[in-house]
Amino acid sequence: MRVLTGIQPSGALHIGNYFGAIKQMIDLQEKSDLFIFIANYHALTSLKDGEALKHNTLDAAINFLSLGIDHTKVTFWAQSDVKEVLELYWILSGYTPMGLLERAHSYKDKVAKGIAANHSLFSYPVLMAADILLYDSEVIPVGKDQIQHVEITRDIAIKFNNDFGDIFKVPEFKVDENVATVPGLDGAKMSKSYGNTIDIFCSEKELKKATSRIVTDSTPMEEPKNPFTCNVYALAKLFLENDELEALKVRYQKGGEGYGHFKAYLNGLIWDYFAPAREKRAYYVAHKEEVIAILDEGAAKARHIASAKMDMIRNLVGIYR
Amino acid sequence: MRVLTGIQPSGALHIGNYFGAIKQMIDLQEKSDLFIFIANYHALTSLKDGEALKHNTLDAAINFLSLGIDHTKVTFWAQSDVKEVLELYWILSGYTPMGLLERAHSYKDKVAKGIAANHSLFSYPVLMAADILLYDSEVIPVGKDQIQHVEITRDIAIKFNNDFGDIFKVPEFKVDENVATVPGLDGAKMSKSYGNTIDIFCSEKELKKATSRIVTDSTPMEEPKNPFTCNVYALAKLFLENDELEALKVRYQKGGEGYGHFKAYLNGLIWDYFAPAREKRAYYVAHKEEVIAILDEGAAKARHIASAKMDMIRNLVGIYR
Repeated sequence: MRVLTGIQPSGALHIGNYFGAIKQMIDLQEKSDLFIFIANYHALTSLKDGEALKHNTLDAAINFLSLGIDHTKVTFWAQSDVKEVLELYWILSGYTPMGLLERAHSYKDKVAKGIAANHSLFSYPVLMAADILLYDSEVIPVGKDQIQHVEITRDIAIKFNNDFGDIFKVPEFKVDENVATVPGLDGAKMSKSYGNTIDIFCSEKELKKATSRIVTDSTPMEEPKNPFTCNVYALAKLFLENDELEALKVRYQKGGEGYGHFKAYLNGLIWDYFAPAREKRAYYVAHKEEVIAILDEGAAKARHIASAKMDMIRNLVGIYR
Repeated sequence: MRVLTGIQPSGALHIGNYFGAIKQMIDLQEKSDLFIFIANYHALTSLKDGEALKHNTLDAAINFLSLGIDHTKVTFWAQSDVKEVLELYWILSGYTPMGLLERAHSYKDKVAKGIAANHSLFSYPVLMAADILLYDSEVIPVGKDQIQHVEITRDIAIKFNNDFGDIFKVPEFKVDENVATVPGLDGAKMSKSYGNTIDIFCSEKELKKATSRIVTDSTPMEEPKNPFTCNVYALAKLFLENDELEALKVRYQKGGEGYGHFKAYLNGLIWDYFAPAREKRAYYVAHKEEVIAILDEGAAKARHIASAKMDMIRNLVGIYR
C-alpha cells in the first residue's frame, strides 16, 4: 500500500509535531510503501524569504532523518527535485473546475486570517493533487482540515479518468483518530502559531526555560495534586510506559512534591527521549553532503516513477513528442 | 530588441492569419531578436484531443517554416520542450494577486461563451507571464484583446522586482495598427469561428470552392462595378503591387467582366502567391525529422537562456540547491 505525505519545511519542530505526526510516519515506514517529500514548492505560497526556505528545506531533511525516518525504507525527497510535478499540475489544471477551488475552505480561511490572496495559495490544491496522483498514491494521512484537499484530488482524478480511462489511482484519505493531542505550555493544542511549543532540538537551557513556563494550578507543595488536570502530567504521559505513568500518578496524589519537581522530571524525560535523535542531528549537520546524497537518491527513485507516469500522460493529452 | 510571440497550434492557417500576423513576424525576424514558440501548453486549456494537439503542434512548426520563418534568424521552439516555464509559472503565482486574474476580460469572455471554467483557463495569464519573463522579452506584439494580459505580466514583474531587485525586464506590448484587416468570404473579418476563411494550404479545388463562395453584389456583367465595396477586390489587394491593383480597378470600372472573372483572377493570385510555401510544406511533411531537429535546436537555444534565468530565480526565492 503506497502512502504519501508531504512535510512543510517550516523551521523548528516541536514535540506536538513529533507525537502528532512524525511518530506515525516512523510506524508507517515499517508496514507500507511510504513516500515522504519536503513540500518546498508549497512553502512558496507563504514564505517569501529565500535564504530561510533553502535552510528550512535541508533542515527538514536533517530533522526527519534524525528522528527516525529511514531512507532505506522510505522514498524521501525534496519536491523541487522532481520537476514533473509542475507539468502534471499544469495538465490537471485543465481538469479542475474553478468551482472546486472556489469552495476550498483552507484558501478562504487563510485569506480571512490576512494571508495575501495570491494565485499560488488559491491553486495549492491542484499542486497537491499532482503530488498525490503522480506517484499512484493510495492513502493520504491527513488532519481533518486537509480532508477537502484529498477530495479535490479525487474529483480531479475521476474527471481525468473519465476522459482517458483508468490512469490515476483515486486516493483515499486517512484521518488517524488515535493521534495524541499534545497540549502546549498553556494547555491549548501545541502549535507554533500559539507560541506554546517545546522544540525537539532546543538546547538544555531552552528546554528548562520552556518547561518552567508550563501553566499549572497553585496547589501548595504539601497537598495532593490532580494529575488529570495537569499539563505537566499530560506531557509526561507521552514519554512514559504504563508502570512509569502509574508511579508518577502516585507521586501527584501523595502530595509533598511541587510542580517544580514534576517539571524537572518532565525535563529529564524529554531530554533523554530525544538524545539519540540529537546525536544523529549533530552528525547530519556536520555532514550535510550525506543528507543531500540521501535526498538525491530519493529524488531519483521518485523521478523514475514520475517520469514513466508523465510519458503516458503527455502522450494522452497530446504534448508533442 | 527581443520580441516574443506565441503561436497557437490550432490547425489550418488561413490568409487572415497570414496577412494579420505571420507576415509581420517575417518582417520582424530581419530587424529584431525574434523568439517564437508554439504554445502547446496553452492549447491544453481548450483542446482535449491528444492526437489532434500532437498533430497540430508539429503542423504549426511545418506551416510557419514553410511560410518563411527562418530558424537561423529566429529562436523557434515548442513551449513544452522548455520545462522551466512551468517552474517559473508556479513561482510567479506567489506574486500574482487573485484580483489581477479575476479582472481578466479574456477569462470572463470565454466562460460567457460557454468554454468550461477550468483552472487552466483562469490561470493562463500567469503562464503567459512566465513565457514572457523567462526570456527577458522586451516587446510583445499583440492584438487589442491581449493587451490586458501583457499588463498583468508587467504587474507581476514589477511586484517580483520590488522584492528582489531588477530581475525581470518589464515588457512593452505593441499593437500594430497598420495590420491589414482581412475580410472573409462574407465580408466580415476572416476567422475560423465564422467559417468564412480561405485556407493557405488547401487544394486547388478547395481554393476554387472557397473563392466561389465570396459574397458579391448582383451588378450585371456588362456594367461598371465598384471595386471599393467588393470583397473580391479587397482580398486581391493583399496580393497586388500598386500598378497591378490600379489595373484591376480599371477592369472593375470599365464593365464587361463578371465577378466570376475577378474570382478566377483572385484564385490565381492566391495559388501563385503561396506556391513556394506549398512546395516547402510538401518537403517538410515528407521530412518531419528535419522539422523536429529544427525545434530541438530552438529549444536548446531557449533552454540555455531559461536555465540561467531559473538558476538565479530559484536561488532568490529559496528553492533548495
